[in-house]
Parts: sequence; structure tokens; C-alpha cells
Amino acid sequence: MRHFLTLRDFSKEEILDIISLAVKIKKRAKKGKFKPYMKDKVLGMIFEKSSTRTRVSFEVGIHQLGGKGLFLSSDDIQLGRGEPLKDTARVLSRMVDMAMIRTFGQERIEEFAKYSTIPLISGLSDRYHPMQLLADYMTICEHGKDKNLIAAYVGDGNNIAHSWLMLASKIGFELRICSPKGYEVNEQVLNDAHEFAKKSGAKILVCEKPKNAVKNASVVTTDTWVSMGQESEKAKRQSDFQGFMIDDKMMALAQKNAMFLHCLPAYRGYEVSDEVFEAHANEIFDEAENRLHVQKAVMVWLDRQR
Amino acid sequence: MRHFLTLRDFSKEEILDIISLAVKIKKRAKKGKFKPYMKDKVLGMIFEKSSTRTRVSFEVGIHQLGGKGLFLSSDDIQLGRGEPLKDTARVLSRMVDMAMIRTFGQERIEEFAKYSTIPLISGLSDRYHPMQLLADYMTICEHGKDKNLIAAYVGDGNNIAHSWLMLASKIGFELRICSPKGYEVNEQVLNDAHEFAKKSGAKILVCEKPKNAVKNASVVTTDTWVSMGQESEKAKRQSDFQGFMIDDKMMALAQKNAMFLHCLPAYRGYEVSDEVFEAHANEIFDEAENRLHVQKAVMVWLDRQR
Amino acid sequence: MRHFLTLRDFSKEEILDIISLAVKIKKRAKKGKFKPYMKDKVLGMIFEKSSTRTRVSFEVGIHQLGGKGLFLSSDDIQLGRGEPLKDTARVLSRMVDMAMIRTFGQERIEEFAKYSTIPLISGLSDRYHPMQLLADYMTICEHGKDKNLIAAYVGDGNNIAHSWLMLASKIGFELRICSPKGYEVNEQVLNDAHEFAKKSGAKILVCEKPKNAVKNASVVTTDTWVSMGQESEKAKRQSDFQGFMIDDKMMALAQKNAMFLHCLPAYRGYEVSDEVFEAHANEIFDEAENRLHVQKAVMVWLDRQR
Repeated sequence: MRHFLTLRDFSKEEILDIISLAVKIKKRAKKGKFKPYMKDKVLGMIFEKSSTRTRVSFEVGIHQLGGKGLFLSSDDIQLGRGEPLKDTARVLSRMVDMAMIRTFGQERIEEFAKYSTIPLISGLSDRYHPMQLLADYMTICEHGKDKNLIAAYVGDGNNIAHSWLMLASKIGFELRICSPKGYEVNEQVLNDAHEFAKKSGAKILVCEKPKNAVKNASVVTTDTWVSMGQESEKAKRQSDFQGFMIDDKMMALAQKNAMFLHCLPAYRGYEVSDEVFEAHANEIFDEAENRLHVQKAVMVWLDRQR
Repeated sequence: MRHFLTLRDFSKEEILDIISLAVKIKKRAKKGKFKPYMKDKVLGMIFEKSSTRTRVSFEVGIHQLGGKGLFLSSDDIQLGRGEPLKDTARVLSRMVDMAMIRTFGQERIEEFAKYSTIPLISGLSDRYHPMQLLADYMTICEHGKDKNLIAAYVGDGNNIAHSWLMLASKIGFELRICSPKGYEVNEQVLNDAHEFAKKSGAKILVCEKPKNAVKNASVVTTDTWVSMGQESEKAKRQSDFQGFMIDDKMMALAQKNAMFLHCLPAYRGYEVSDEVFEAHANEIFDEAENRLHVQKAVMVWLDRQR
Repeated sequence: MRHFLTLRDFSKEEILDIISLAVKIKKRAKKGKFKPYMKDKVLGMIFEKSSTRTRVSFEVGIHQLGGKGLFLSSDDIQLGRGEPLKDTARVLSRMVDMAMIRTFGQERIEEFAKYSTIPLISGLSDRYHPMQLLADYMTICEHGKDKNLIAAYVGDGNNIAHSWLMLASKIGFELRICSPKGYEVNEQVLNDAHEFAKKSGAKILVCEKPKNAVKNASVVTTDTWVSMGQESEKAKRQSDFQGFMIDDKMMALAQKNAMFLHCLPAYRGYEVSDEVFEAHANEIFDEAENRLHVQKAVMVWLDRQR
């Protein structure tokens, strides 16, 4: 049995295998064809942090696989009322067939996985967001941007940045990361990425200035400056991130026809200008849609390992 | 592709077509037969205002059509956290097949529809409540009250009153509206109803006194004096609505065997007496049940237009 | 038509019948086989009190029966906003096929049932928790402990204790109850149990000291000292329940290989020691899992009575 807690645990071949399955599933879905890969199976979905895209994509996804998603918010269940996570993990393991958790600390996901006898998928933690990066890479492939890929991530050194590091270092493409002082990526994650890069041939660069990261990039991306739970730091963050907005001027430095990705929600006038967002809306909503398809592939893939 | 945002956008023929489909679907359901009109399809249901009847009727309805309802409350999704509605509309359009929104301003529904590439249904706004009125008219037809229909709406000039105006003026029956001073229906909606009435032959009357509206009516209806979000005006409203309760004395003015409808929740001793409510409970709960059937018809109808 | 509001209303034969059906359903489920006993049917699930196990077990259960569970929290519906329960009962009766309610007062469940034209299941009230006790007894049977059963309940004289009284007095086994002063079981429930015991041959004992209850017992059980809604009494309760923890010393008084059950959530260091909990984890999580199977049996059983 395998869990999907972070891209670290997966090889290049496994990642590409999942994306190829996602492409196949998407193609069939577009014709209104849904193979009941997980008939009668139930996915327990635990949300300690709410989310439109993660919620909708997993619940629609498991439905399209012939199964059922069971949405559990912290309000609905007793995680918040002092029940140890290991008990919830063991109860859910007895009642459902697979679980997804979207939470704060990565250590909560690891703790759940330790006691879970069913496959567990991370739907985001403070450390990683692997499902988002699978969707991103699937979108990059669909748009033919996986050849000679040079990706630039400009923004907060957060879970998205960390998952970019994992993806690039596993797949073997060039990634430039640029974050403001005080918002750099986790050093351990960066070291791990450098380690994986030795095998894959990835080029991992940490840049001082956004324009250095974006220059000649074929894919540019960013994330919100103020994630859920950071609302109290909003003013300080908005000030610290000055100069990090992806606008037309910034995009002009990238390759002609460079792609712009955003995992949403997007705050215009902060991490991205309205012009850039709307010019790349089709790519961005492809990226959002691919959460649906790639997560179906992850579920089917994990179900096959049992 | 069509949306269903208000009865204004629908012709008499279309409304009757939907109700006739609803009657057919209900008849089959009573025999335990459910045709999978929307197999594998997903209805996204966004609730910015909570509701028992809208929630249950849509979620059961789409299930009986072979599809799946995805319940999204404001707590669960990121609408409230600054994501523009147009982004949520575009994301949902990529992941689900149809959407329902229950919200405050009608302009929010219109904005969502503008960016939605899937059919959108209004599950209520501050301006209109079209699904309720379809259920009301279906109930009126079932009880044989659509011939020579004289309807009296006594109460708040709110979304229910506005949808009565649209229904009557489209279908072509007599409607008397009576609201207390300061709680009159929206003038623009009233003018539109008079305009539509020219074509349909409807008779739209605004009455000064409740008894004038009810006199000789074949269907009497009302709505709560204090809707969700108006709790702070409760005392003032209860005082301003004095004399507007539908009680036995009031019903005695209507035709013998006149119908009484109420969209629920009902507050006994305020807009309706307990005696009137319980005497007409069967009609009222038929009306509630018909939300289920008529909304299935709306979904099937919209799905066919794609 | 029958409701399942408390074990009081069921005969020994009916209880055993349901458990035997549950065992059959569980056996098939373990092979991945699910008979669609309730195809196209919808279970409305009203939660005025939240719960992991009740939520997951009913929603997964009805899904495995081929039907659909509709989760309604107090936030989602209008029960809390002054709609009389009798109206909600009548609306739901028109829209769904069966209902489950988890609430505070048993009288709310009785009121709902009075107006409901569909079978209603209690998912817990302040007075009783019949589904839990069916799962407990199913687990006892599975582990071969139903022969010469001597059960000891040490703890709060709450809904769990009351349902143990009903179960024992209906089935006819020996039950020892021990609660601290001021937390004794309801006298009426106790008297009823003594009455039922006359017919079944049950032996119902109220013990002064925990060790007297546990001595030579074949099944030991307890419940949290502080239930939902009692958080303000926490410190007082924890002090009043001193000496009532089930730890290794206490279990040593019971029969060799005695079973320990806990309905969860469990608070280590309070009603149970971590050692006892983890030593009996397999029994406890069997008990949790059996909620799923026994509730499917209850639904199928009630559906057959219609």
C-alpha cells in the first residue's frame, strides 16, 4: 500500500505514469465516458482548512470514478475536540476505502498515515501541495511546454514553492525560485531538491531578483502573498512583497508565448496583475480543471497498489 | 445554453412545458421509477444563505436524476475570502455540469452567469425566487385551481412577491398584491409585470387593504414578515405588519375551498394563524414536495438546451 | 411502519434479527459485495450535535446499500431558526425515504417521529444511543462473548448507560452499572430495565464501587466523563470521577481475556488508561466499524416494514 503525502516519495517514472493516466481519463471524460475504476468505494475527505478547488475536484473526481466522496469539515467531526488523530485514522480506516486530508502541519498528515490502513492523499499542508503540482505539470505537458522547460516561481517560499522544488528535482527541469528576504523556501527542502537534482539533471536556482528568475523562462508562476491563516500579517506581507507582482513588464522578460500558471485564488494587483491573469485565463483554468483529472489518476493509481 | 435566473426570461410556453415535465417526473417517482436523465452529471450547489428546502430538494432531485449534488456552503468555499465570483464561476464551469446558487443580491447571480459556461439556476436572491413559484404553480395546477385563478399575495413586497408578479404576468392570471406601507414591491418589477400582462392578459392589482386582496380569491398566500438577514428589524416589522395575518376570518373572505399556500418556514401567529396553516397543511406540504419535482424538470430542461 | 428511537421498543427477537442481518451484510462487504437493498432511496441525516462515527457510518452505510445519505447540520437547515420540528418532519417526509436524527432531548426525536411519515432512526439523544449498543452487542457476539455475558459499565449514568440497561434487560444478560454519586442512571430507565428483566431473566445490578462492578466481568466498558455540551462542568466532573478510570489494575479484576469496549472518542488518562485502550484497540475499532454494518441492517430492516 502507498500513500501520496509528497512528491518526494515518488520517482520520475511514477509521476509520469500518473500524468499519463490522467490524460487518458480526461480524454474519456470529455466524451462523457466515465470508467467506474472505484465502484462502491468511498473516499473520506478531511478538511481542516477549507478550499473550493480541492473540495470540488476530489468530490467530483471520486464520483466520476463510480465511488463516493465523504466531505468532513473540522466542524463536522471530532478532530478539533481532542480526539487523537491516530484514533480518527483507525476509525476511518475501518469505514472508508481511501482518505484525503487538507490540514496545517505536514506532521499531522504523517501521523494520520502512520495509523491508517487505507491509502492517504495529501490535499495540502503547510509544507507541500503535491496535487497542485501534478495538475501544473499535466497542464505544462498538455500545452507542449515540457520540452526544454524553464520554470520561474516568484513569490512566497511556501508549500507551493516546496512542491515546485520537488517536482523539478524529480522530473529534471530548470527551476528558478525567487522569494523576498524572510520568505525563502525551507532550507532542508532546498537541500533535498539539490540532492534529487543530481540524479535527474534538474537545475535548481535561487535568484535574488524576480527579473532574474523570469528572464527567458518558459513557464512563470506565483502564489498569493497571504495564505489562509496569515491574515494578521497581511499589511506587513504586502509591503515585504513589493516588486514581486507578475505584470506585463515582468512577463515581457520571459520567452515569447511563455505560460503563466496560478493555483488560485488570485489577488489582482498583488501577486499578479489583472492583465496578466486575464491574458492567461485559459491556461489557469485548464490548470484548475486538471486538479480534477490528475487526482482521479492518483486515486486509481493508489487503489491499484493495494 | 440557457440559465434559469428569473421567470422574466421565460415564456408562458416554456413555463408550462417545464411544469408538464415535472408532473410526468413526479408520477414516475411515486411508482419508485427514476429515469437517469442526468447520469454521471454533477450539480454544484452554492449556498451563501442556508435553507432546508432548497438544499434537500436540489440534492435529492439531482440524485433521483442519476447525478450528484455537490453542496458548497460559504464556509466550505472561498467566495467569502475575496475570490472574485467570476473566478469561482470559471473554476466550477470546468469541474461540474450545472450550478445552483442561493445568495443575496440578484447581481451576484447575474455576475456568476456571465462567466459561467454551464447552466446556472437561481435558488433564491433578494430579488426573485423562481423555483418556489414554479412549485407553487405546479401545486395550483395539480389541485385544479389554475382555471379562473385569482391569487392573493398578502405580505412583504419581497422576492416571493416579485416572483408572483412575474408568474402571473407571464401565465396570464389575476394577481392581487397587498403589502404594508414601506414594504411595497419594487416599482420596476411591477412595471415589467404590467408590461408582460399586456401580452398575456393578466390582471395585476395592488390593493390597499388585505381584505380587498383576499376577497373572492381562489388562492391565498403570504410569506414570513422577517426574512433571513432582517432579524434586527424584527420588532419594527412585526408592528408594521399588524393586520396582515392570514387567519380564519381572512380566509372566510376568499372563495369557498380556496387554497392557501406558504413557502415555509411559517411563523404561526404572525403571517399565518396556526388554524389556517394546519387546515391547509396538505396543500402546503404538496407545495414543498413540488420543489423537488419541478426542480428536476428545470435541470432536465436546461440540460436539453445545451 | 416502525421507527428506531430506542431499544425499549424492540423485542429480543427483533434485536437478534437485526444483528444477524448485520453479520450477513458485513460478511458480504468484506468480499467487496454490496447488495443494493435501498437503491434510489435517500436517508436524511440531521445532526444537531456533530459526530465523526455517526456521520461516516450512516453516510457510507446508505451508500453501500445503493442509496444516498443527505447530511444536514443545524447550520445548513432552518431547525435552529425557529421552524417547528413538526414542519421539518413533514417536509422531509415528502422529500426523502428515511431519516436519522442526532440531537439533544429525546423528546425532540419523539416529536419528529410523531409527524414523520417515513421511518426515523435515533443517532443519539441525551437519553439513549441505541445504534451504539447494537454495534456493541454485535461486537460481543462476533468475539464469542455473548455466552454467559457479564457486562460492567463503569462511568457516567448517561445515554450509553441507559442503552446498556435497555440492551441487557431485553437480551437477558448480567449488567453491573457503577456511577459516581450524582451521576447515577435515570431512575425511570432503571425501573423499566428491572421490569423487562423479569421477562428476559436479565440480572441488573447497581454497584457502589467500580471494582465490584468489574470483578469477574467478561466485558468491561465506559464512556467519556465529559460529553459534548458539558465542557463547563469539566473540572468538577474530572474530580467527581476520580477512581473510575479503567486501567490495568481494574481490568485485572475482570475475567481473563475480558473484552474492553469504548464507543469513542476516548480520553486517555481519564475514563481509560492508554495501556488498556491500546491493548484492546482491535476490539474497540471492531466496535466502531460495526456501527457501519449494524446501521445498514437497521435501515434495511425498517425499510422492509413499510
